[in-house]
Amino acid sequence: MVVLTRQDVSDAAGRIAGRVLRTPVLEVAPGLFLKLEQLQHSGSFKVRGAFNRLLSAGDLPASGVIAASGGNHGLAVAHAARALGVRAEIFVPEVTSPVKVAGLRALGAHITQTGAIYSEAAEAAAKRAAETGALEVHAYDQPEVVAGQGTVGLELMEQTGGVDTVLVAVGGGGLVAGITLGVSGDAGDAHGAQGSGGLGGSGGPRVVAVEPELIPTLHDALAAGEPVRVPVSGVAADALGATRLGTIAYGVVSRAGVRSVLVPDDAIVAARRALWERHRVVAEHAGATAYAALLSGAYVREPGERVAVVVCGANTDPATLAAEA
Amino acid sequence: MVVLTRQDVSDAAGRIAGRVLRTPVLEVAPGLFLKLEQLQHSGSFKVRGAFNRLLSAGDLPASGVIAASGGNHGLAVAHAARALGVRAEIFVPEVTSPVKVAGLRALGAHITQTGAIYSEAAEAAAKRAAETGALEVHAYDQPEVVAGQGTVGLELMEQTGGVDTVLVAVGGGGLVAGITLGVSGDAGDAHGAQGSGGLGGSGGPRVVAVEPELIPTLHDALAAGEPVRVPVSGVAADALGATRLGTIAYGVVSRAGVRSVLVPDDAIVAARRALWERHRVVAEHAGATAYAALLSGAYVREPGERVAVVVCGANTDPATLAAEA
Ligand SMILES: Cc1ncc(COP(=O)(O)O)c(C=O)c1O
Ligand SMILES: Cc1ncc(COP(=O)(O)O)c(C=O)c1O
Repeated sequence: MVVLTRQDVSDAAGRIAGRVLRTPVLEVAPGLFLKLEQLQHSGSFKVRGAFNRLLSAGDLPASGVIAASGGNHGLAVAHAARALGVRAEIFVPEVTSPVKVAGLRALGAHITQTGAIYSEAAEAAAKRAAETGALEVHAYDQPEVVAGQGTVGLELMEQTGGVDTVLVAVGGGGLVAGITLGVSGDAGDAHGAQGSGGLGGSGGPRVVAVEPELIPTLHDALAAGEPVRVPVSGVAADALGATRLGTIAYGVVSRAGVRSVLVPDDAIVAARRALWERHRVVAEHAGATAYAALLSGAYVREPGERVAVVVCGANTDPATLAAEA
Repeated sequence: MVVLTRQDVSDAAGRIAGRVLRTPVLEVAPGLFLKLEQLQHSGSFKVRGAFNRLLSAGDLPASGVIAASGGNHGLAVAHAARALGVRAEIFVPEVTSPVKVAGLRALGAHITQTGAIYSEAAEAAAKRAAETGALEVHAYDQPEVVAGQGTVGLELMEQTGGVDTVLVAVGGGGLVAGITLGVSGDAGDAHGAQGSGGLGGSGGPRVVAVEPELIPTLHDALAAGEPVRVPVSGVAADALGATRLGTIAYGVVSRAGVRSVLVPDDAIVAARRALWERHRVVAEHAGATAYAALLSGAYVREPGERVAVVVCGANTDPATLAAEA
């Protein structure tokens, strides 16, 4: 079993420095911070994990790297591969919109459109990787990917000088697990203490996972005691629509005592609109999901509590902000 | 004659602290910084000057404050007045769109729609202020307003650790003049040295003013040796459309040796689009004007030159980003 620690996240930060942006933090009210990770290269945090995976692999094979995703992960892998001058093959299901395919192509990726749904494209990608020897980059369930995403948490602590609570959206769980490690006060092994993610724990902030009611990967995993298959639908499904939590993520967040808070789709839509109207921040639905917990009251901030909200993606058509009015 | 100094800007910063956001800086490439002032309360830097004017005035009259503007200045004054619990009267010309009027009304302002064009609304506002004793807040030509806008420059220097050059959009010149004072290395009187805004000056960065070709208020003032009336049109006219540079601004920027760089409207449109596509930053046309100088080559960055671009407003319909494709 892989045991990831905060040291892996620190190592990742050193590896990817200069390749990713140190995204800014905006304090919108005293003690309420938005980590503006939607301003990251490729429009989401996913490049952090992608770069860490590629830069950890040593010499990359001539066949390059391969990933399955028509969404943010695909864009991130294509971006990282181009930056490092290696070939990227991205497998996307046939339903992927021409706009997304064009976006990937503009980044120089070789696209294969195959399979009716994501899992079929993913299978085809795995088969192709076995044939060509290309390096696979998983969307969330690889140690280097989780450690890379965790660098968001390291930055957040430096930039805010520390917070009590971090709200993070969850799909396959790579981001929330990485951040849990990255913000943990325990420099050696963040898994040592039960509940180290809580206020009374080993010094790090409490991490709260926020999920759409329609995609409760972490909620259902915690209830079942292991990752289980969940139905996937709703406004954030294009980014948070993993059908089950990753094994690595489950290990990290269950040991750290991370809670899951569920939000309905209309709260996500309202949060996305409020981010624009109040703060001039454009986010995609997944990127507004953590903020939805605050705005809807699903997570209630205590007086004086220092809370950071991770705004994690903005690959969206800004015109839809007007259309939803 | 009013002689403003950097001390006035520092005083303003102390006065408005906690009322305005310390907007973040994003380093998009090594040594290239975007000051994300479009994330400011009310969607532009204008609240800085508005708060400084209101908070400098001592006890505010029962009749409150008054301003003429259907745009960012009006929103900013309405925001500041509401925050301080005073009445705001905003005069706007009859052409102002219902959406903008609704936005002002949502901030609790009392709206008077009068006059065919801005200058008629402004005259009516001045007349009304004389009757009621309300405090007038000018859009750019008052010392407290200029000093307030200058706090953008103070923050920028702290956040970047210093730059060689700052690119700033110009309308009536309050922002560029304030920033020129705020970034000047000369703590006493920034007007002491000729050309103190240049690299070879008294230690502050060079400030470069960027203006639409279709609204050359500073360019024409520098050519004429005094503020002159210019024709106003083009995509940024709703925010940069002052008909002449302010007297205070002229004094500050001409003494500091600030240059004007002109950009065509299509460069502004392209820059606004690039801010979204490359950086997920949504700006209005005025807010993208400074960036347009870099992108179009109207301002050429030297190798290693540290450049800050002020992104100063986002009161725009994000749907128009799609429509311009
Ligand atoms: C914008 C955005 N937010 C959150 C997530 C969830 O990340 P994870 O799958 O690591 O939980 C994703 C995943 O694609 C995403 O694109
Ligand atoms: C977004 C934006 N940028 C720039 C300016 C220009 O500011 P100034 O009139 O102080 O030059 C304005 C003025 O309204 C504005 O709204």
